[in-house]
Amino acid sequence: MNPDVFEKLLEIGTALSSVHDLDLLLDKILSYAQVLTNADGASIYLIENNKLVFKVSRNNTFFKQWGEAKTRETFKSFELPITKESLSGYVAITAHPLNIKDVGQLPPESDYHYDPTFDKKYNYKAVSMLVIPMLDNEDKVIGVLQLINAMEGEKIIPFTDEHVKITCSLSSQAAVAIQNTKFAGQLKEAHYDTILRLSIASAYRDKETTNHIKRVAEYCRLLANKVGFSKEDTEILFWASPMHDIGKLGVPDAILQKPGILTPEERKTMEKHTIMGAMVLKDSKAKVLVTSRIIALTHHEKYDGTGYPQGLKGNEIPAEGRMVAIADVYDALSSKRCYKEAMPDQEVLKILNDGRGKHFDPDMLDMFIAYIQEAKKIKEFYSDTDKDFDKLSSLGEINLMELLKND
Amino acid sequence: MNPDVFEKLLEIGTALSSVHDLDLLLDKILSYAQVLTNADGASIYLIENNKLVFKVSRNNTFFKQWGEAKTRETFKSFELPITKESLSGYVAITAHPLNIKDVGQLPPESDYHYDPTFDKKYNYKAVSMLVIPMLDNEDKVIGVLQLINAMEGEKIIPFTDEHVKITCSLSSQAAVAIQNTKFAGQLKEAHYDTILRLSIASAYRDKETTNHIKRVAEYCRLLANKVGFSKEDTEILFWASPMHDIGKLGVPDAILQKPGILTPEERKTMEKHTIMGAMVLKDSKAKVLVTSRIIALTHHEKYDGTGYPQGLKGNEIPAEGRMVAIADVYDALSSKRCYKEAMPDQEVLKILNDGRGKHFDPDMLDMFIAYIQEAKKIKEFYSDTDKDFDKLSSLGEINLMELLKND
Repeated sequence: MNPDVFEKLLEIGTALSSVHDLDLLLDKILSYAQVLTNADGASIYLIENNKLVFKVSRNNTFFKQWGEAKTRETFKSFELPITKESLSGYVAITAHPLNIKDVGQLPPESDYHYDPTFDKKYNYKAVSMLVIPMLDNEDKVIGVLQLINAMEGEKIIPFTDEHVKITCSLSSQAAVAIQNTKFAGQLKEAHYDTILRLSIASAYRDKETTNHIKRVAEYCRLLANKVGFSKEDTEILFWASPMHDIGKLGVPDAILQKPGILTPEERKTMEKHTIMGAMVLKDSKAKVLVTSRIIALTHHEKYDGTGYPQGLKGNEIPAEGRMVAIADVYDALSSKRCYKEAMPDQEVLKILNDGRGKHFDPDMLDMFIAYIQEAKKIKEFYSDTDKDFDKLSSLGEINLMELLKND
Repeated sequence: MNPDVFEKLLEIGTALSSVHDLDLLLDKILSYAQVLTNADGASIYLIENNKLVFKVSRNNTFFKQWGEAKTRETFKSFELPITKESLSGYVAITAHPLNIKDVGQLPPESDYHYDPTFDKKYNYKAVSMLVIPMLDNEDKVIGVLQLINAMEGEKIIPFTDEHVKITCSLSSQAAVAIQNTKFAGQLKEAHYDTILRLSIASAYRDKETTNHIKRVAEYCRLLANKVGFSKEDTEILFWASPMHDIGKLGVPDAILQKPGILTPEERKTMEKHTIMGAMVLKDSKAKVLVTSRIIALTHHEKYDGTGYPQGLKGNEIPAEGRMVAIADVYDALSSKRCYKEAMPDQEVLKILNDGRGKHFDPDMLDMFIAYIQEAKKIKEFYSDTDKDFDKLSSLGEINLMELLKND
């Protein structure tokens, strides 16, 4: 064995486990597979919806000819049915590796055949080929790793048994990495799903709709992006903002749903929703909940210090609170509620501008207004219908047996 | 290089990435390190609270002498201050590996020294030693991996440069695995923290306390354990149960908080909280939320079919719903509420038994009563004080600046 192979193998485990982005990781695995087997081309297909979907690929010939970007773009959207006739389909079904010296010389009675369409289209010649199943923890095939044309200088040679072993090891690592990413993704999704559902549920008693919660989150993301929040901070704000009014759970119906103007005493109780929200969320270490707490507490502060509950001024108000203030007011003005129609754009803009430097952070407001067309698109995408306002009307039509299903 | 080493290295990446339990994983990494370097002993220390805390260890000599269980038990709780004097402390501070031929022959002017206390106490003799820093993605030391006594038959020999390379690769993989586990743990914690907080918040308007939510979850865990739920299903039930009354958000204060007896019409509205809860949670793919939905919908069904909303009978009621029914009623009877005292144990038991086969699943009830002493311990641990009932009383004393902190 080449001593370089030893060094490479030592590197791989570390290198792979330190990559968090799945596409980067798969690409890295392919590049190791290429280096260790001297293959001209390498691809990964994953099984999705009963098809083999092309995920990443590297090909030295095309990289030289077209450059990396064009190669990747060209081969981006490609999928295959899973049938025993194709090489990758055969491997996906049988879970057995195929090591073929020359795909052009497969006997006609063979179960599988090489489809030369691709080669003809792109003027490429595949000769030796190694197709390896990617097995997950439970030995289920989740995809295949394919290597094309083992090279010795300019000559195409067959893949060796050592190549098979090395590639099997790499493909298992890829499979497990894919699974880990999937698990992490599912957990994250579950977390965010919970936040959104419970936030929506708690807005139930209020005059707000499900879409209000979603729109405010989207406006916040838009604004955070524009004012230069990092990708991570933007995402956290997006998921923290739905809980901004969670403290309204502590406000009695008689005040929360009162049609007329509140008495000073009622107003005081109503304003406490900021503090109660922060109380519900206090002492959590989770980043999203920490940000939610800060937003709950500060989204009614005003830039000139006349807001509540603390009368904070300017930059004393955390950026997240200043952003939700703009998003929340914009949404209240620009969308229909059960008790009012949506306000015309010009009036909305006037009110926002009147609040510049008084209610709202002037720089953030300018930024928001600069991108108001994008905000309008969000508004339209999540617009409310009459049904959204009458939240309990549909309870009678529900199929309870559907709700009982465990799947 | 030994061809076995090549085979082992191919195995490792796959083997490591398929282990999800962190302790098992670290143990596996140590066993690979032992096999690849022929070391008698191997340990991992992690940095926690500015100390080196002993996590896992393997030692062939002690395994032979005492067996694995006793060895692990003996060396379980062990920690070291991080100072340059000790070998592991030196490596933790400098991030440089140490490969020492004979720890007994270190020159007195050396920066670091070997502490023979352990050897004397357990009649062991450490000679050659390899101490490798465990570096995370950002090259920060998170712990050290220590190998003791490279063996050649019965003879202790020094560790080689190849051993250093192999062990560095393994220790990086361990470090990254530890980090991945930590990330996954944090995300899970964030998810569950959110469920609990929002469930508690939504019980705010009700006569329930924070502790009620926690007690019901604990009773469910106890019962699920006893009726043979898997560890995973038990955990899911534990985290799904807090949301059982989430649909009460759709019940007006006038009904939810009415002191007297409800009119038939009010009762009908009240009973809708089961359906509304299921509606809030419908269409989620997250396991916890699916279980929550089923619990929300079915926790007021009765075993004899006289419950609501569907009048399901016996095993038509999902097991989770039957368990929450017992837990919820037991808690309502046995604990104090703002409007009533706790009921004496004998009366509680009588009411539960009267409901056997009528309200409650008879087998589950028998099981719960068989372990009633454990339930009582839970009740005492999460018992309510007067302060717990007066949820808004403390709002005046809150330090708002504390709630504003972002850390």
